[in-house]
Amino acid sequence: MIKVPGFLSSSIYVGIKKKGGKDFGLIFSKVPAKVAGVFTTNVVKAAPVILGMERIKNGYCQAIVVNSGNANACTGKRGFKDASLTASLVARELGIRESLVIPSSTGVIGVPLPIQRIKSGVSDLVSKLSEDGLLGITEAMMTTDLFPKYTTAYIRLGSKVGTICALGKGAGMIAPQMATMLCFILTDVNIQKAALNKALLSAVENSFNKIIVDGDTSTNDTVLMLSNGTLGNEALRIGDKYYSTFQSAVNQITTQIANMIVKDGEGATKVVKIIVKGAKNEKDASKIANTIGTSLLVKTAFYGEDPNWGRLIAAAGRAGVKFDPQSVDLFFGEYKVVKNGIEVLNENIFQHVMKSPNFTITLDLKNGKASSFVITSDITMDYLKLNSHYRT
Amino acid sequence: MIKVPGFLSSSIYVGIKKKGGKDFGLIFSKVPAKVAGVFTTNVVKAAPVILGMERIKNGYCQAIVVNSGNANACTGKRGFKDASLTASLVARELGIRESLVIPSSTGVIGVPLPIQRIKSGVSDLVSKLSEDGLLGITEAMMTTDLFPKYTTAYIRLGSKVGTICALGKGAGMIAPQMATMLCFILTDVNIQKAALNKALLSAVENSFNKIIVDGDTSTNDTVLMLSNGTLGNEALRIGDKYYSTFQSAVNQITTQIANMIVKDGEGATKVVKIIVKGAKNEKDASKIANTIGTSLLVKTAFYGEDPNWGRLIAAAGRAGVKFDPQSVDLFFGEYKVVKNGIEVLNENIFQHVMKSPNFTITLDLKNGKASSFVITSDITMDYLKLNSHYRT
Repeated sequence: MIKVPGFLSSSIYVGIKKKGGKDFGLIFSKVPAKVAGVFTTNVVKAAPVILGMERIKNGYCQAIVVNSGNANACTGKRGFKDASLTASLVARELGIRESLVIPSSTGVIGVPLPIQRIKSGVSDLVSKLSEDGLLGITEAMMTTDLFPKYTTAYIRLGSKVGTICALGKGAGMIAPQMATMLCFILTDVNIQKAALNKALLSAVENSFNKIIVDGDTSTNDTVLMLSNGTLGNEALRIGDKYYSTFQSAVNQITTQIANMIVKDGEGATKVVKIIVKGAKNEKDASKIANTIGTSLLVKTAFYGEDPNWGRLIAAAGRAGVKFDPQSVDLFFGEYKVVKNGIEVLNENIFQHVMKSPNFTITLDLKNGKASSFVITSDITMDYLKLNSHYRT
Repeated sequence: MIKVPGFLSSSIYVGIKKKGGKDFGLIFSKVPAKVAGVFTTNVVKAAPVILGMERIKNGYCQAIVVNSGNANACTGKRGFKDASLTASLVARELGIRESLVIPSSTGVIGVPLPIQRIKSGVSDLVSKLSEDGLLGITEAMMTTDLFPKYTTAYIRLGSKVGTICALGKGAGMIAPQMATMLCFILTDVNIQKAALNKALLSAVENSFNKIIVDGDTSTNDTVLMLSNGTLGNEALRIGDKYYSTFQSAVNQITTQIANMIVKDGEGATKVVKIIVKGAKNEKDASKIANTIGTSLLVKTAFYGEDPNWGRLIAAAGRAGVKFDPQSVDLFFGEYKVVKNGIEVLNENIFQHVMKSPNFTITLDLKNGKASSFVITSDITMDYLKLNSHYRT
């Protein structure tokens, strides 16, 4: 059972998800919590995302109301009205200001939110709030996810022990129509707003911004972090003794959720870390890692367990970064397969690396000291089945 | 039978392609031909590409020697030696300068060219040169291609009739390991070097630069255009009466070959034109068209004949171009499905458009007057089978 002091939650089925299962959830903090958020960079943003971006500017959030089965994206003015109405109904029932409620949606896009079902569920949802409801929230967030995603870290701040819990959903990075990544991070640790922001942005950069399933980004991606200060510690500041402990814990849990999302990547059988090092700067390394990790030819080779290193090098070559192909080294796991651009190891020796469900590929450009990475999956027959026939 | 006056050609099997079929070909112009070329933008370039880029600087080319089954890419210094040796053997046998011979390779990368087999085939290849050999060249260029690709245009220049013939290969844009796009365009029309260059670049921009199969670009992409002037017309110049006739014909044949490549796109069942209009400038339109045409979610929806317009809009939204999602219109064929960002037509009415093997999707941003397009394919189970288990 996962609990975070000062947070209550609940989840129910109101009939938005056709296949059944919980589809409506509420997270409530007994006191207004400081909030930080990261949202999709897609120009096409769902109504609740636009509302959420606006509301976190207040600096405080007391409730997150989430539904799955409908993304409330590409729904025009009606979409905004529905998102706002959902939040206001929840606020009224909870007896708090509407601006402290952030709505969040995930699921099919282009279809209006079934607002009558939402309306009819609000009072039931609020009446069911309890300290033990967090697991149910992960279920209410799921769409094509095969398993619920959550993780908790405990950190010691002197004599006090704080809790940081992350609840995630996503099975793709991301099928806009069917998944979208959401993550809510809850903590009782008291922390200054600027420090909360920094901790979240830094953690997201090295977790959710590094995962690739299909290279598509969604209209609904949202990461929210709430700190209600229930632990009663003096508010952490950037540079404090305990700030780095806090940052490490947030890094750890976001990385765990990110890995779960790739593992659950629609139909995926492999989780592969692509490290690019020896680059002139991190941006170059990141561009190359992204291009390799998104390449269909690379991802199908992973699926086929084919040690087809030429595809990796050729993908690197089209990343828009200059490098000398005649000086690169390439590693499968610990095996140096390519040295100075030429194969130096027979594939019989290293092919077994690819049989593992988790492995690492390292490309060394030998052109500088910067590095970056991505976590990617393979593209399988199941991915195709799921995505070509979803909906119809 | 296709013939271009003044050009001879031949093709044989020397044992490079494991599955058999012609794998070594030669195109020879009786007199040195003016040459223009376009090569892969990939940083990782095959040895013959680097040699070819160097040699077209001379302005003349008299022979193209091509092999399939091996790309001679990522083969280090030995690769350059092999490419150069191939050209020099051909030159000696033909009795021409080596710098007039351009080698071209396509196939597996990372494996040294089987140079002994090449060596042993050269004199046979030269002895078989004939006016009727062009069709054989298309076979000697094929790797995973399911059908040979060629087309011919005839243009009237006053009393003379000129021939322009394009020989292409490719079944992906492009599987670096297994395909790579090649196109050789031969003409007897006399044309100034600058005009030849302009005609080729302009044609490539609207044909080969607009096709997408998997978004991967290859180490070997090469388009060469040779004009031997055998027709005896006064050399065409940019702006001449007949220059635009020539340009149109080159546009036409490159577009035809480009469409054949998409149609032959590994496992493809659909050829879809994505038009983006109403953009501020062509670059924006092109970015969005490319992002839609490369999106796995879009391409799998095409495969499933799923009129999943949300995926198209969401892909447009991540192209890195600002636009107002609330003002876009989207058409499936002639049907306006989305108006000002909202669905206005039930899918039952327009879904049949996607059942056709060829259809057009138009996105109107209503934000300007510029437009662009791409030709893309669907991603099918056969694509995955082919690419995950190729080689191993």
